[in-house]
Amino acid sequence: MSPKMTTELLKQLRQVMKSPKYVQEPVQAYIVPSGDAHQSEYIAPCDCRRAFISGFDGSAGTAIVTEQHAAMWTDGRYFLQAAHQMDNNWTLMKMGLKDTPTQEDWLVSVLPEGSKVGVDPFIIPADQWKRMSKALRNAGHDLVPVKENLIDTIWTDCPQRPCKPLITLDLSYTGVSWRDKIVALRAKMAERKVLWFVVTALDEVAWLFNLRGSDVEYNPVFFAYAVIGMNTIRLFIDGDRMMDPAVREHLQLDSTLEPEFKIQVMPYGSILSELQAVGAGLSPKEKVWLSDKASYALTEAIPKAYRYLTPYTPICIAKAVKNASETEGMRRAHVPKGTVTEIIAADKAEEFRSQQKDFVELSFATISSTGPNGAIIHYKPVPETNRTLSVNEIYLLDSGAQYKDGTTDVTRTMHFGTPSPYEKECFTYVLKGHIAVSAAIFPNGTKGHLLDSFARSALWDCGLDYLHGTGHGVGSFLNVHEGPCGISYKTFADEPLEAGMIVSDEPGYYEDGSFGIRIENVVLVVPAETKYNFKNRGSLTFEPLTLVPIQTKMIDVNLLTQKECNWVNDYHQKCREVIGAELERQGRHEALRWLIRETEPLIRV
Amino acid sequence: MSPKMTTELLKQLRQVMKSPKYVQEPVQAYIVPSGDAHQSEYIAPCDCRRAFISGFDGSAGTAIVTEQHAAMWTDGRYFLQAAHQMDNNWTLMKMGLKDTPTQEDWLVSVLPEGSKVGVDPFIIPADQWKRMSKALRNAGHDLVPVKENLIDTIWTDCPQRPCKPLITLDLSYTGVSWRDKIVALRAKMAERKVLWFVVTALDEVAWLFNLRGSDVEYNPVFFAYAVIGMNTIRLFIDGDRMMDPAVREHLQLDSTLEPEFKIQVMPYGSILSELQAVGAGLSPKEKVWLSDKASYALTEAIPKAYRYLTPYTPICIAKAVKNASETEGMRRAHVPKGTVTEIIAADKAEEFRSQQKDFVELSFATISSTGPNGAIIHYKPVPETNRTLSVNEIYLLDSGAQYKDGTTDVTRTMHFGTPSPYEKECFTYVLKGHIAVSAAIFPNGTKGHLLDSFARSALWDCGLDYLHGTGHGVGSFLNVHEGPCGISYKTFADEPLEAGMIVSDEPGYYEDGSFGIRIENVVLVVPAETKYNFKNRGSLTFEPLTLVPIQTKMIDVNLLTQKECNWVNDYHQKCREVIGAELERQGRHEALRWLIRETEPLIRV
Repeated sequence: MSPKMTTELLKQLRQVMKSPKYVQEPVQAYIVPSGDAHQSEYIAPCDCRRAFISGFDGSAGTAIVTEQHAAMWTDGRYFLQAAHQMDNNWTLMKMGLKDTPTQEDWLVSVLPEGSKVGVDPFIIPADQWKRMSKALRNAGHDLVPVKENLIDTIWTDCPQRPCKPLITLDLSYTGVSWRDKIVALRAKMAERKVLWFVVTALDEVAWLFNLRGSDVEYNPVFFAYAVIGMNTIRLFIDGDRMMDPAVREHLQLDSTLEPEFKIQVMPYGSILSELQAVGAGLSPKEKVWLSDKASYALTEAIPKAYRYLTPYTPICIAKAVKNASETEGMRRAHVPKGTVTEIIAADKAEEFRSQQKDFVELSFATISSTGPNGAIIHYKPVPETNRTLSVNEIYLLDSGAQYKDGTTDVTRTMHFGTPSPYEKECFTYVLKGHIAVSAAIFPNGTKGHLLDSFARSALWDCGLDYLHGTGHGVGSFLNVHEGPCGISYKTFADEPLEAGMIVSDEPGYYEDGSFGIRIENVVLVVPAETKYNFKNRGSLTFEPLTLVPIQTKMIDVNLLTQKECNWVNDYHQKCREVIGAELERQGRHEALRWLIRETEPLIRV
Repeated sequence: MSPKMTTELLKQLRQVMKSPKYVQEPVQAYIVPSGDAHQSEYIAPCDCRRAFISGFDGSAGTAIVTEQHAAMWTDGRYFLQAAHQMDNNWTLMKMGLKDTPTQEDWLVSVLPEGSKVGVDPFIIPADQWKRMSKALRNAGHDLVPVKENLIDTIWTDCPQRPCKPLITLDLSYTGVSWRDKIVALRAKMAERKVLWFVVTALDEVAWLFNLRGSDVEYNPVFFAYAVIGMNTIRLFIDGDRMMDPAVREHLQLDSTLEPEFKIQVMPYGSILSELQAVGAGLSPKEKVWLSDKASYALTEAIPKAYRYLTPYTPICIAKAVKNASETEGMRRAHVPKGTVTEIIAADKAEEFRSQQKDFVELSFATISSTGPNGAIIHYKPVPETNRTLSVNEIYLLDSGAQYKDGTTDVTRTMHFGTPSPYEKECFTYVLKGHIAVSAAIFPNGTKGHLLDSFARSALWDCGLDYLHGTGHGVGSFLNVHEGPCGISYKTFADEPLEAGMIVSDEPGYYEDGSFGIRIENVVLVVPAETKYNFKNRGSLTFEPLTLVPIQTKMIDVNLLTQKECNWVNDYHQKCREVIGAELERQGRHEALRWLIRETEPLIRV
């Protein structure tokens, strides 16, 4: 990788920062955040503005350009990559290190008195705007919204915003019709005494209307907003997508409907003016519900007194709790997939996946890594680093796909020769952590962060650990990472776990320069039977949806308790039953023999 | 308990709420918080204003009186008690229940338009003022500071503010002189670029000057503030206490000192005007450091631009990490105490404690409860509820004391007859939780809330749980509850655990109407030896300071793993060695025989 040359681009950007064509007054600094207008984790190529201006294309980072400086804030996962991809015009700000200034502090230290700092109000979330704006104001500066995105003005070959065809999902996949979802949403709105609800996250729009798209790689979503009133439904979406008869039929656009279920289709770009009109027409006590992560532009469209902001929207929470059709779909989606450079293995895994019924696309870029590459947690094989799989090194494969009936995400760590005792020891600690979470019983209403230490306890006992969370929420044919639940030492305001939620369970251990180990299943939160029932609260546990053998060759059986040993044997028995039956049906006898071999019961001596 | 009659008192309060003698403009509501001017957990009788006006004397609660209503907010621990203690003038607001309005929402719902809500600015913490003030302003009302406390104006027999003699602690107890503490504090101030530091918490003043008092029951503290500059030390304190030659000598009040160590003693009541003078004399960039829990009155004395507010002060954090003299003292403080109505048992425990060297007072009101009383977590025996200890019921004793060398807090649960299999089962789960925390190994920098679930796992497996945190920070001859560390499912912003911190480990199980079980040790955070050392972070574990046998009769040995069984046996061996030697020295042979009997090794079958 050679760094991107940005001298000319930065010169152009600094010109438009002063150009009356784009800014009312010159701005002395311009902020380029990572995200798009929908706070998406994965973004479309046309939204990769920070990568365009800097060369750094990791998933997280914020660029700030002043007249004299260009600085990039990113976290520990990306220090190396950012340093490789950026030229000398850029200063790397290593977040999480003690001496690294915050963006606000840095701005205050470099800006001349009374400066203006510009940002695209559609890209910056309202909560970030508020924090940044306050810090700058306290130091005598101003954060100002710049309507036209300044990167777009210099990005001559910027790709078009994607506008791919939509997929309609019928009741057999979704379990609930979009009409019923609207009814439930309006009930929540009535409960909170709000009149309007603004849907800004792409996966929330997709879930609400039982539609999917492919505008963003790995995420089956499409660019759209929705504004739901008590008697109106407005969908803001572009292109010919609404000309597709299947979509028209699905949304009943040409049917005679009660007015409160009639969908008004409007141009994607008209959301701001429509929302401003809503805001202008409100009477006292009429409130509009928005996520507090919605863009500053949309939040500002509603006068402050009329805003009702919450960290999690009712759609986010409803979406996290899967209904019977969705959990059945997730179960189906997890039944077969097959399993010899890293790239070939990744391609092969993708090929096997794509042969399965209802396959749509991958749910994220496959991580296929061997030996020391495995220790790079977000490794994605490219020709320069591609290593040959060998019988001497540990191989880690983290892959997933989007099926019409669900989203998968599984990691297995394998050795094709003879693992060292140390490799087995580490693998077994990771497995003990995986089991400790998967088999945990906990009260209804427990938040995921309270389970995180169970995954680490066996590693901690020996002085080991891993520097990532243990699990994330998983969408149902939606984003492979979704809120509001998860399992992490970070106590972000996660919502309590409840039956029907789906999360990943993926502890690991990574030894720099040597190997990486991770064991990941997608698991469903289910009610647990317990001997007693304190305060009638009920208990929960997890059911693994992923059914892929865990390589027994890597396990040091004597480090397992009998209970842990039984867990592995029961899990492998289930793999045999469910996956074996499907392999048999598909006539894949070689795979079946492999399955039987890999699921032989463990015996403690 | 019969409720306090408050009709007349409320009438008087409503009169002064309109009296130009006390308020600039009439206030339509008056807030009576729980605390004192130092955000203390335990308060002096003269500060029990909320109890005076309402009758409710639990440790947590806020009263609000309007022209028409009187309402009391308290939490689940106190619903019953508050209902008993308050008459019909009062509405009980049960915090934590879904339909209970917040204080702000309730005020907005009952107040006439444009109301003024009064509060004593010395009693309300700045962060609470900010939240309340904002909510009221949004609804068109105003929160106003009322200088004279309105309860005090009608409290004719209000007790005097205590002004008891001080105790000086020499280096053998504190390990660090007050001069060196000032030097370290000034270094922290320089690091953060602040010129002044305001000490408002009573235990922080006591710790800083190596002084103790007895103004507040159970807490060896005294009423005082301190303001530390880079070249000045001001101590705000009343009474003849500064006439005591031992105190004068300790503080070197009559010595010739470098000016930066010369303590200026000022009247307690002059803190506000002195702080206002400091605030008025500041130049740009000169900051004053305060806790964000300091009173609104003191916070407002410093203009906003000059304030530096943090949730934990550097004293709070330094105080939590005990030095060698303090940990040695804590160890000594935990060596003997003796162990047949609840009250007699409690009195006896107190008597035994008070015979020990360096005893000062109890560290909290002894909880001595038998049978169903044990299920009331904050139970304190009084004649009306006093039960006779019997051979048929579980007995729970939670007691602690202040010694000059440390603070203790221990709970043991015992049966004097034959416990039922169910009682033993529950006790054993609690013990497993206690051991899981006590024996846990975890990386340096781990926050206490990540250990909380270890204490619950065995209970959760059977559908049981307890509704309180697992541990709190413990002061060194200071408050038995102190920040900034603890072990709780509540993720209050706790600071990471580090070697030298002291916390309690006290899981429990409570069955309403039947019994209560709790096993509590005070434990010291110590470095742990591990096989590996990931990223060179180092590991920590706990060393029990409390050495009191855990009743083996209550343990179902077959529910313990071999590792847990070994933990109990090792712990009991240490009790024999350390406590046995001391009992022998004191010639207490009966107690020694009891100790030997109670520490017989467990054997798993």
